[in-house]
Amino acid sequence: MTEVKYDVLGIGNAIVDVLSFSDDKFIDDFGLRKGTMILIDEERADVLYKNMGPAAEVSGGSAANTLAGIASLGGTAAFIGKVRNDQLGNIFTHDMRATGVRYSTPPATEGKATARCLIFVTPDAQRTMNTYIGACSTLDDSDVVEEEIAASAITYIEGYMWYEPSTKDAIRKAMRLAKKHGRKVAFTPSDVFCIENHHQEFLDLIQDCDLVFANEEEVKTLYKKDTFEEAAEAIRGICDIAVITRSEKGSVIVTAQETIAVPAAPVAKVVDTTGAGDLYAAGFMYGLQRGWGLKECAELGGKCAAKIIQHMGARTLKPLSDLVEAA
Amino acid sequence: MTEVKYDVLGIGNAIVDVLSFSDDKFIDDFGLRKGTMILIDEERADVLYKNMGPAAEVSGGSAANTLAGIASLGGTAAFIGKVRNDQLGNIFTHDMRATGVRYSTPPATEGKATARCLIFVTPDAQRTMNTYIGACSTLDDSDVVEEEIAASAITYIEGYMWYEPSTKDAIRKAMRLAKKHGRKVAFTPSDVFCIENHHQEFLDLIQDCDLVFANEEEVKTLYKKDTFEEAAEAIRGICDIAVITRSEKGSVIVTAQETIAVPAAPVAKVVDTTGAGDLYAAGFMYGLQRGWGLKECAELGGKCAAKIIQHMGARTLKPLSDLVEAA
Repeated sequence: MTEVKYDVLGIGNAIVDVLSFSDDKFIDDFGLRKGTMILIDEERADVLYKNMGPAAEVSGGSAANTLAGIASLGGTAAFIGKVRNDQLGNIFTHDMRATGVRYSTPPATEGKATARCLIFVTPDAQRTMNTYIGACSTLDDSDVVEEEIAASAITYIEGYMWYEPSTKDAIRKAMRLAKKHGRKVAFTPSDVFCIENHHQEFLDLIQDCDLVFANEEEVKTLYKKDTFEEAAEAIRGICDIAVITRSEKGSVIVTAQETIAVPAAPVAKVVDTTGAGDLYAAGFMYGLQRGWGLKECAELGGKCAAKIIQHMGARTLKPLSDLVEAA
Repeated sequence: MTEVKYDVLGIGNAIVDVLSFSDDKFIDDFGLRKGTMILIDEERADVLYKNMGPAAEVSGGSAANTLAGIASLGGTAAFIGKVRNDQLGNIFTHDMRATGVRYSTPPATEGKATARCLIFVTPDAQRTMNTYIGACSTLDDSDVVEEEIAASAITYIEGYMWYEPSTKDAIRKAMRLAKKHGRKVAFTPSDVFCIENHHQEFLDLIQDCDLVFANEEEVKTLYKKDTFEEAAEAIRGICDIAVITRSEKGSVIVTAQETIAVPAAPVAKVVDTTGAGDLYAAGFMYGLQRGWGLKECAELGGKCAAKIIQHMGARTLKPLSDLVEAA
């Protein structure tokens, strides 16, 4: 059996985030749905960018953020995702590798530019994300490398990647290979919009997963339940471990046998919620791969989320390893 | 006479900053001189970037930061500087315009890429800057638009721009036009390295200026003096107003008639000193154009500098106008 070299391998969109502050009027004026992610075409991206305030660029992408988080905590991680060989692609690639994530997917040499996500952060610290998916959509199953999957304890899949026949093929191949090599599969449905667009497919995917990360609204949407309690019961036992994040209410871990509620970590001031779920997943999986109890995993996840929402963007420029030492 | 439309027009390098944290060992290992800016070629930029930690991209450029600061305070500003029509050029252009700065220099459509500055921020919050100047060096006097200079109360020139015959021509033309239209000229020598490389030329330039911004080390280097007091006496009267910044010691304004010392604004925690001088100049010139006393100008300059060094990068994503209201 292949030796485990990576705690987690992730498959996701390779995106550079373009972050700015905006007011609620902007969200209304441009017909955005606050707190969600939508895919936009290049024309719409140009219009939104033209009207966006001054911005900062930070590498992003949901699964990519999670892997950067794991590496930053001191774990090992690998990423599969597609950029173009342009300036933003170089930035994304640099940041992954500089954080210590193995990233060897060949960049596209023609076609659409590297993806960017225009993120508007409102005074309530909510982020509204508009993604021009660009080169990400050209990922296909030839980019999924069997030896990397075989060498990864967990293969982590972001729901955002589930939109093209070719990207779905890539995900299916990765899940198949993970099972073949006796590895775990983790999945996040990513967003309520994604669930609405791929409802039955996501329910099917979750049945094949060992681990699912979703927030409260996402679990309610998945199982068409009105209350958190009903939703938590609906997902119980479908996958080994369901991790439900609840913002300031903390998180709840649901397994066939138990329900573990963990309060949120203290936060001085929420600046930007971008990446909260991604970094929670990083902390949780980091702990899980080290044999920690589920409660301890959830606590580290919560600390990582608390850390990231106190600054702008979903990546930290300084290592997160002090959170592990404190745990 | 042309109506004044801009408080300040600046000529400078159009750069996207690539910011990361590093340790002192990195500075030593790569032979960098802490706290300064040096120009590097593409090969060296690739080596440094490859070894740099995860980074954030924020538009920069010394004069450009100053203009963004003036616009952010609620003033009016215009910029002349050269990007290429690439992704980083689009980012730079967007951020200038989104902050409210008029920026109409046509981008280069071929040749070198948009400039980037690799900035290593050490635990002492000092920044060490390595600039691949790229498209900036193709600025020439045809980019200096007479009607913009005529419409600007102050034409502000950064010493960093003084390195190519064509960029020197552009600066000379701008100074000539400012005088022709009865406008003020302001200059910053930018950096001790720049002064060492262009010593006599900078001394000559300063004699033609109304306003000079320099830090203590720069004034000492310009006039070859060992103490601050001697350096301040040496520059007295050479230009109408010499503004000398002294980091945590505040700033000193020297005119033929008087010397005004203003303490530094309080700072909770210095994160990154990138842009401190640029933002000081923004606050000072904002006040000057509104007829404030020199002491009040220096105080606002100090507040702007204090604001910017408490976060990463030389631009703020939120307006600075609350600093004016508090003044």
